[in-house]
This record gives sequence, structure tokens and C-alpha cells, in this order.
Amino acid sequence: MEEVRTILLHRSVYADNDAEADALRSYLKDRGVFLVNLMSSPGAGKTTTLTALINSIKNKVRVGVMEADIDSDVDALSIAKNTGVKSIQLHTGGMCHLDAGMTKSGLDGIDISDLDLIFLENVGNLVCPAEFDTGANLDVMILSIPEGHDKPLKYPLVFQKSDLVIINKIDALPYFNFDYEKCVNYIKMRNKDATIIPISAKTGEGIDKVADYFLNKLKQFKE
Amino acid sequence: MEEVRTILLHRSVYADNDAEADALRSYLKDRGVFLVNLMSSPGAGKTTTLTALINSIKNKVRVGVMEADIDSDVDALSIAKNTGVKSIQLHTGGMCHLDAGMTKSGLDGIDISDLDLIFLENVGNLVCPAEFDTGANLDVMILSIPEGHDKPLKYPLVFQKSDLVIINKIDALPYFNFDYEKCVNYIKMRNKDATIIPISAKTGEGIDKVADYFLNKLKQFKE
Repeated sequence: MEEVRTILLHRSVYADNDAEADALRSYLKDRGVFLVNLMSSPGAGKTTTLTALINSIKNKVRVGVMEADIDSDVDALSIAKNTGVKSIQLHTGGMCHLDAGMTKSGLDGIDISDLDLIFLENVGNLVCPAEFDTGANLDVMILSIPEGHDKPLKYPLVFQKSDLVIINKIDALPYFNFDYEKCVNYIKMRNKDATIIPISAKTGEGIDKVADYFLNKLKQFKE
Repeated sequence: MEEVRTILLHRSVYADNDAEADALRSYLKDRGVFLVNLMSSPGAGKTTTLTALINSIKNKVRVGVMEADIDSDVDALSIAKNTGVKSIQLHTGGMCHLDAGMTKSGLDGIDISDLDLIFLENVGNLVCPAEFDTGANLDVMILSIPEGHDKPLKYPLVFQKSDLVIINKIDALPYFNFDYEKCVNYIKMRNKDATIIPISAKTGEGIDKVADYFLNKLKQFKE
């Protein structure tokens, strides 16, 4: 039976989350560690995408994963079992998002000294996580086909804030009324600079492009 | 072009939301109006389900809909166009949930004097809406097949709180690794009294059962 460490996070004591987030980025820069904040609705495929992605890059960079959830350890266990990389489960104690202080507690728990790239899987929620800077170097979101192409209209901030929008479950396109072109236009309306990559974490389609994206970002960061 | 009224809600001034929610239920009881709070992840099919449901009951009871969203009017417009019943759009001004005071503002806006049954479509979010009593008579949630059967493990409170769990998009069962029996067991683990109804809002399957459920609840309420 796999086991992962679980940490119960506490609400941050810091009044100024933005300052705390900037301080965390300096801390990571000093240590050469690149942190990615991954957001999505519940069930959009964060863990499945991370699994496929990590298996395609783990021989090139040292990857770690922090899985945040209200409750349960299923995601960290799944990452540990299916990728073998270092992972840790963070429990938010009911909170709907992570802030920079909570993220720092997670980083202290996982021990970043032997890592290059860390993925923070945020709580499945399109609203609250977008409102708090976690201190990550990059904000990434996953939208999945079954959710519908109108989501950028209804949850503007998370699209506005994301450097990369991964559109997952494209293998399910034939079964849903999802207008891909319309969706891309809506995303660009919120954030004209967003990179958009369509994938299927299930079939593996597009995972190579996501891998290249992160390896490039990491390379730029280390330069 | 359809038009619907839009109200921007403000954070409630009431310190005690539970007391405010009880007061709202008394207010509704006095007026013979039954209020249903509908929760789900983004894209689980709240609006599509409501559309199919309302079209099957609107000749029997007087129905109204309050569509809450961070932004956009697409849902209230869609309900107005596809059902013809009275609908109103509520904007939460960035907030991730509704509380009882915000719900009361919505009810004042839609005018409940000619209604029997009102559906409040909460913000698409499995975390925050479950934490605040809206003052509704019934809490209902939709889980959709593409989200996965493990959601009751990861978002316990919303399952614990819901009187009815609708499992939507069952037409998509063949395309996803969703273990229906496991999901039902997980839901019962959180809430042994929950009613569970599988449906496809797209094909109409199961909508008659959901309609009967609400008509019975309304009948009991009016007795």
C-alpha cells in the first residue's frame, strides 16, 4: 500500500498575501525551483493530466507534486503510484483555495532541495483559487470539453490570470456540444496572451506539447 | 433579442447567516413559495437540467428561476428563451457563493407573488456554496459523469448537505471511467438519506423522476 505524507494547512497569518507571494517567488528563485499553480473545476482532469505529463518529463527534470484538497488523499496516492515522483497531500481544512502562506507550508513539507519543478494542484474550483496569488511562477488552468465552451464568460478571472489554458478531454468532443473555436475566442477575450493547448490526458494526445511548454519555461527560469 | 433583469448582489450585512436563513424560510412559508438551491461544479449541467425539468412541470406549477453567476447573463437568457418562465440574473460581484441575505435580494427582485416554486441556480462551485445556508427549503446538487465517481470523497460537505443528488450526463457513461455503483456508495457514505436520481438532461432520460420528486416535495410543503 502506497503512503504519502499529509499536511493540514492553516489560514495564513499574513495580512498582505501579494507581498507574501512575491517573497515566496524570491525564495524559489534563490533555490532554482520553479513552481506551477494548476487550477480547474472538479473533475476536469488535473491529476490525470499531471500523471501523463510527469511521466513524459521525469527523466529530464526532478519533479515534485503538492496535491491540495478539502479532504481525501486519493490524488497524492495516485500520483505516487502512477509516476513514482515525490508527492505530498495538503488538506485545506475546508478552505476553497490556497494562498501564499499555505503554499509555503506545503513547500516546507515536501522539501524542495532536490527538486527543479513543482506542481501545486489547487482545490478544484474556478472561483476562489483565481483570487489568491499562491507565489507560483506560472498559473495554469485546465478546462475540459464536457464543461462547455462558455466557461470563460462565466468565470472570467481564472482565464484572465492563467498563462496557459489546457483544454482537456478532446477525445470526448464528438459527444458534447462544444464549439472549440468559440471557446478559444472567449479565452482570448479574457486574456489575449494566454497559450492554449488542446489535449487528451486519457489518450496522451497533446501531452508532448504541454511537456515542451513546461521544459521551455523551466529553461528560461534557470538561465 | 431576449432580455432579463440583472441584479448585482452585495455582501450581506447580517452577522448570523443561519438565523437569516431561518427567517427567509418563514417568509417563504407564509407566502406558500418553495425555494430550491441548486449546486454543482461548473459545467455539470445545471441550466440544461433546469430547462428540461421546467418544461416538464411548467403547466402544473408556477415556476421562477434565479440564475446566480460571477458574471454574464447567458444562463438567465437561456432559461427565458427555452422555457418561457420568469427568470432573473444575479451577479455575485466576484463572490463564490450566495448567502441568505443575497438570496432574499434576489427574491425581492424576481417578485415571488405569482410563483409556487423557485429554483436558485447557485454559483458553479462544489466548495463555498455548501458552506452557506441560502434559506432554501431544499438543497440539490448535480454531479456529472465526466467529473468522476470520486467526487464525494473530495468535496464531502456538498454531498452531506444535499437532499437530492442528480447524476447527470449518464448518456456519456460509455466514454468515461465512471463506476456508478462506487459513486452511489461514496454518496451514501457522506449522506445515507440522500435521494439519488440518474439523468441525461440532453436526452431527457430520468427528467420525469426529477419532476415527480419536486412536485411531491411541493405538495408536502403546501399541505
